[in-house]
Amino acid sequence: MENQLSPVGMYKTTTNEFRGNWIQYIYTLQEQICKALETEDGKAIFSHDEWQRAEGRGGGGLTRVISNGNVLEKGGVNTSVVYGRVTDKMRNQLKIDGEKWFAAGLSLVIHPLNPFVPTVHANWRYFELYDEDDNVKDRWFGGGTDLTPYYLFEEDARHFHQTLKNAIEPFGESLYPQFKKQCDEYFVNSHRNNEMRGIGGVFYDYLRPVDEADANRLFSFQQSNGNSFLQAYLPIVKKRRGMQWNAANKYWQEIRRGRYVEFNLVHDRGTLFGLKTNGRTESILMSLPPTVRFDYDYKPQPYSEEDKLWQVCLKPVDWLKKN
Amino acid sequence: MENQLSPVGMYKTTTNEFRGNWIQYIYTLQEQICKALETEDGKAIFSHDEWQRAEGRGGGGLTRVISNGNVLEKGGVNTSVVYGRVTDKMRNQLKIDGEKWFAAGLSLVIHPLNPFVPTVHANWRYFELYDEDDNVKDRWFGGGTDLTPYYLFEEDARHFHQTLKNAIEPFGESLYPQFKKQCDEYFVNSHRNNEMRGIGGVFYDYLRPVDEADANRLFSFQQSNGNSFLQAYLPIVKKRRGMQWNAANKYWQEIRRGRYVEFNLVHDRGTLFGLKTNGRTESILMSLPPTVRFDYDYKPQPYSEEDKLWQVCLKPVDWLKKN
Repeated sequence: MENQLSPVGMYKTTTNEFRGNWIQYIYTLQEQICKALETEDGKAIFSHDEWQRAEGRGGGGLTRVISNGNVLEKGGVNTSVVYGRVTDKMRNQLKIDGEKWFAAGLSLVIHPLNPFVPTVHANWRYFELYDEDDNVKDRWFGGGTDLTPYYLFEEDARHFHQTLKNAIEPFGESLYPQFKKQCDEYFVNSHRNNEMRGIGGVFYDYLRPVDEADANRLFSFQQSNGNSFLQAYLPIVKKRRGMQWNAANKYWQEIRRGRYVEFNLVHDRGTLFGLKTNGRTESILMSLPPTVRFDYDYKPQPYSEEDKLWQVCLKPVDWLKKN
Repeated sequence: MENQLSPVGMYKTTTNEFRGNWIQYIYTLQEQICKALETEDGKAIFSHDEWQRAEGRGGGGLTRVISNGNVLEKGGVNTSVVYGRVTDKMRNQLKIDGEKWFAAGLSLVIHPLNPFVPTVHANWRYFELYDEDDNVKDRWFGGGTDLTPYYLFEEDARHFHQTLKNAIEPFGESLYPQFKKQCDEYFVNSHRNNEMRGIGGVFYDYLRPVDEADANRLFSFQQSNGNSFLQAYLPIVKKRRGMQWNAANKYWQEIRRGRYVEFNLVHDRGTLFGLKTNGRTESILMSLPPTVRFDYDYKPQPYSEEDKLWQVCLKPVDWLKKN
């Protein structure tokens, strides 16, 4: 499949093999994550929607979505491998400088049915910029994983963050705190007094290799993050999927999902960039929750379980702090 | 109430009285529209949320929302009268030039429970810009009314457009076609192949008076539009509110409401400007539908009633064309 979608050979760069390895990695990871989630769900399976960019623009992707499962109400695990000429819009919005670009990544969002099972999002991407003669001018990795629970279980938050930290720590002691902070600062509804959309995770961008050895090190870093996803998320699903829930729990989940929609459509750089540059809308908006509720001025009862979750969204928490 | 909220006296301008009259008009219209909608609903009533801008910024508003009615599932009829210094953000986003500004308007969105009753939106606003010495540098009116049905009844579309046309025509023969076109061009989800969010209406902006007589004429034009709202919308509500609907009709309504959310959060200038300049979030986002559904790649059955509605959103229709 990567032969069809990969632009390998399009640009005469020294990174052909590197790029090819990255594409191979995200396709393999996509397959692995979908399989594991299908097994956990036990009912629904992921569809395969292979698409190509229209109007002569290069590349395409493989969108895999699931819905109406035992556990997964809606989810998508998507890869895309796209490339083209840098447009003025890209120059302005992405603040990039170059003539041609290449990007390949995996993006996933899972919205469980049960309000006690958290929503999760992850993305790992690689970007290259070229001059007119196809020489690489710039290249970087970006990515992250974050959790959006509807009810707070502190042990789940600790497990999630600990797993992400374990994946990152071998690459530098200072990285987890730094990327955790960037995550807390990124997934924020600034129009709602800086309420965070969930309990965070890690987020990083523009990790630029200084040389080829460094590029390989960053590739390993991305793999370590990508490979940790199932360990970070699945144990939480297993632990919470059997919990009884009622209409009030669902109502609260749908209210919080409204905040998810607001973040993704108003603030998320990737979503807006995709929508405004003629990306594949259905693949981009698979991130939106299946059912959502927008009430005027909704507030949870003080000291309720709903309020407890809301409170931890109002100020970043160091989930791994030693007591 | 307008004494508290109106900034009359803040700026030494010749437009104090004009501005005061406009504020008086929107408050009166707000009360009139809320009363008529409450009467039609027969169960729910509009709340009163009076608010003031925080952090020393001037003005405030009166947000009136309704929910869980017999007919109206959620709706808001809001006025706001706000003013302050022009910020860099405003200069960039609104492309305006001046030191101080004033804006007053009425915004309404009604989301009915029954999928056979259309959603409606309207807004009428007045804007003034001043130099450092409070001299008026610029002033304009803007506004519009548009209908978002979930099922198409051509006679309703014709009634709606005819009523808007009748209100506008005394001010110029060319205006309705021009403002109808602007509406068709504005309420568009460009990320969905330019699908319109509904069947249009009228939309206009930057109607600048050339002198005081012209300002009064434009004021009358705004009043004619504002006063026509109930005539345009209520007969449709009365005609459709009793229609039987089922879960499939509701499902489709919630899918289309998803498009409404997408337009408001991704494209609507007023919403984004409000959210990004620290406007009152709850008043701005009262426009979002109460329950919404986002499915991956949802398409109605060809030739179904749902498809019939979708098709007229794909290309503007001249609803008043003589056969």
